[in-house]
Amino acid sequence: MTSKRLEQLMSWLKEQNYDMAFLHSTENVFYVTNFYTDPHERLMGVFAFPEAEPFFVCPFMEVGQAKAAGWEYDILGYHDHENPWDMIQQTLHKRDITKASAIAVEKETLAYARAEAILQLFPEASLYAAEDKMNELRAVKEPLEVEILKQAAELADFGVQVGVEALKAGVTEMDVLAAVEYELKRKGIREMSFSTMVLFGEKSADPHGNPGLRQLKEGDFVLFDLGVILDGYCSDITRTVAFGDINEKQREIYDTVLKAQLASLEASKPGTRIGDIDIAARDIITKAGYGDYFPHRIGHGLGISVHEFPSMSKANDGVLKEGMVYTIEPGIYVPEVGGVRIEDDVVITKDGYETLTKYPKELQMIK
Amino acid sequence: MTSKRLEQLMSWLKEQNYDMAFLHSTENVFYVTNFYTDPHERLMGVFAFPEAEPFFVCPFMEVGQAKAAGWEYDILGYHDHENPWDMIQQTLHKRDITKASAIAVEKETLAYARAEAILQLFPEASLYAAEDKMNELRAVKEPLEVEILKQAAELADFGVQVGVEALKAGVTEMDVLAAVEYELKRKGIREMSFSTMVLFGEKSADPHGNPGLRQLKEGDFVLFDLGVILDGYCSDITRTVAFGDINEKQREIYDTVLKAQLASLEASKPGTRIGDIDIAARDIITKAGYGDYFPHRIGHGLGISVHEFPSMSKANDGVLKEGMVYTIEPGIYVPEVGGVRIEDDVVITKDGYETLTKYPKELQMIK
Repeated sequence: MTSKRLEQLMSWLKEQNYDMAFLHSTENVFYVTNFYTDPHERLMGVFAFPEAEPFFVCPFMEVGQAKAAGWEYDILGYHDHENPWDMIQQTLHKRDITKASAIAVEKETLAYARAEAILQLFPEASLYAAEDKMNELRAVKEPLEVEILKQAAELADFGVQVGVEALKAGVTEMDVLAAVEYELKRKGIREMSFSTMVLFGEKSADPHGNPGLRQLKEGDFVLFDLGVILDGYCSDITRTVAFGDINEKQREIYDTVLKAQLASLEASKPGTRIGDIDIAARDIITKAGYGDYFPHRIGHGLGISVHEFPSMSKANDGVLKEGMVYTIEPGIYVPEVGGVRIEDDVVITKDGYETLTKYPKELQMIK
Repeated sequence: MTSKRLEQLMSWLKEQNYDMAFLHSTENVFYVTNFYTDPHERLMGVFAFPEAEPFFVCPFMEVGQAKAAGWEYDILGYHDHENPWDMIQQTLHKRDITKASAIAVEKETLAYARAEAILQLFPEASLYAAEDKMNELRAVKEPLEVEILKQAAELADFGVQVGVEALKAGVTEMDVLAAVEYELKRKGIREMSFSTMVLFGEKSADPHGNPGLRQLKEGDFVLFDLGVILDGYCSDITRTVAFGDINEKQREIYDTVLKAQLASLEASKPGTRIGDIDIAARDIITKAGYGDYFPHRIGHGLGISVHEFPSMSKANDGVLKEGMVYTIEPGIYVPEVGGVRIEDDVVITKDGYETLTKYPKELQMIK
């Protein structure tokens, strides 16, 4: 798996006439090395070249794990008292790589101090963004990646199920959130893909709301938004259920969001303009009179990062391809009344789509 | 609170002859604005000057919260379709700040793309590190900060208590971890200060071990390392207990670590060389023949970050001051046998120290 991805990176460097690339983010390092780690403030990264073999730099104590993950090339493992940049310089010199005019880096996240260290090695170099290329490569998933994303989605379904079963009058948002994460941890999940959201009643109307000690009462919407990280891949599901009976207005909101979500799903197939996925849902919500209450894009790419390329916004002129995985998550948020969002993870198949999340979407009224 | 800290920053800029500072990290922004937020990939930060009033940049939807947190100066709130750097440029021009030769930034974390944006505004400027000064300011805590750290430590004590109560033969590390975090979430804690560690038996001998599905059995050490984030401040506690009866070797390891931990505590008072805190414990462990099994420093500063200044290593020639808060956490890790670590959070008082974590440290054998 690793080799094909590295080859794609190396071909791109050749095409662009770049002398090398340095990739440092947990996500992109995982993508090209198959080694998933976050060394926090310590230096880690892959140096790749158009022709020469790549090498990997990491703290000494991680060398064994990097090899075990399948990295077959050189590894520079440094101890805390050593300066990794000295080791990098020596390695480059040994390989006669002493000049560079163009280096690709992850500009949006590479720390300025590290860019300085690279520019000290190659004072004549300019730094170029590697992000767009990495995003493009990562956007189309391989079958094995889809398989893991499917398992991660299954655990997200399970999380919602646990949450729904924990609902009873008087429980707090944090009680329910705690129950969901408890059961996921017992299945071995160490990290959620983002802060779990459980919102009751009027709080569900805030798309950025924070779970707290609000107690559940009859007539509340309950909005769950959660996901897990499994073997380096993320899931992300949203479901909204009703606690007890709800009013006509609430039901209309729910029905509109569901109809919108299904319309975006139906539009999902190879060749569709990405922006049209957003528009399919937005048209329905606007026609129902709730256009002003749907303030965000329809979704986002999903993979090693919970938010990745492509951005599923109406302005996106890109085109869906087989293997792309993304979320579809329309929402309507009416202050005082409450909010509804319904979100699935979707993979584009040869001639259509498959949802990875499978928890039911018909309106549930929990008694 | 904010004003005094801003004044200290401004005086420093004056002393250094710097034209301005840009602080972007969640931690340092919180320190000078009292506003705690993580806007992820969106730009946020404080521009401060030696004389002129500072201003704050953040996504538009966070403006209200920044004001509510007490920020009294200008705020540039931008929408997603706006370029915040244009607004920054206009603001600087309006204030006649059009030249700068020296700008302090957080070099270790500022993204290269943002450094480029700053250097585009001030092409003649050099960027200098703001970290050392911010670390120095943050290291000495105000009484209100110590009060919050104390409450955070109390919740860490509670977490250990829940964990110990969850121990019974056959439970997994993840079962116990899930129980601990469940009860903390029910108290309203949204974030742990780092990934909770619960390690059984031989796994406790790995200082970087990952909790998994290992089951608890008679004769195991159980190592808990955990903490919470409360109102922007972190706690960090480690306790090791025995499950059932343990052997002489295990008891000797436990007693040695406890003796070492108490020696470092006793050395904690204003004026002590920081490195001597490490040496106090290391001497005892070395004399007992376990020097090679204590591979890490004695501790680290604690506050808005779980690992902050100062680093409590034997080489640190700095001196303890009243108000400093740090961890003391000696450990002995013997492969196959198991590991013991005992960690308290400590504040330096006028003439000594106080531990913020208070969970008992005498060897407990859980039956």
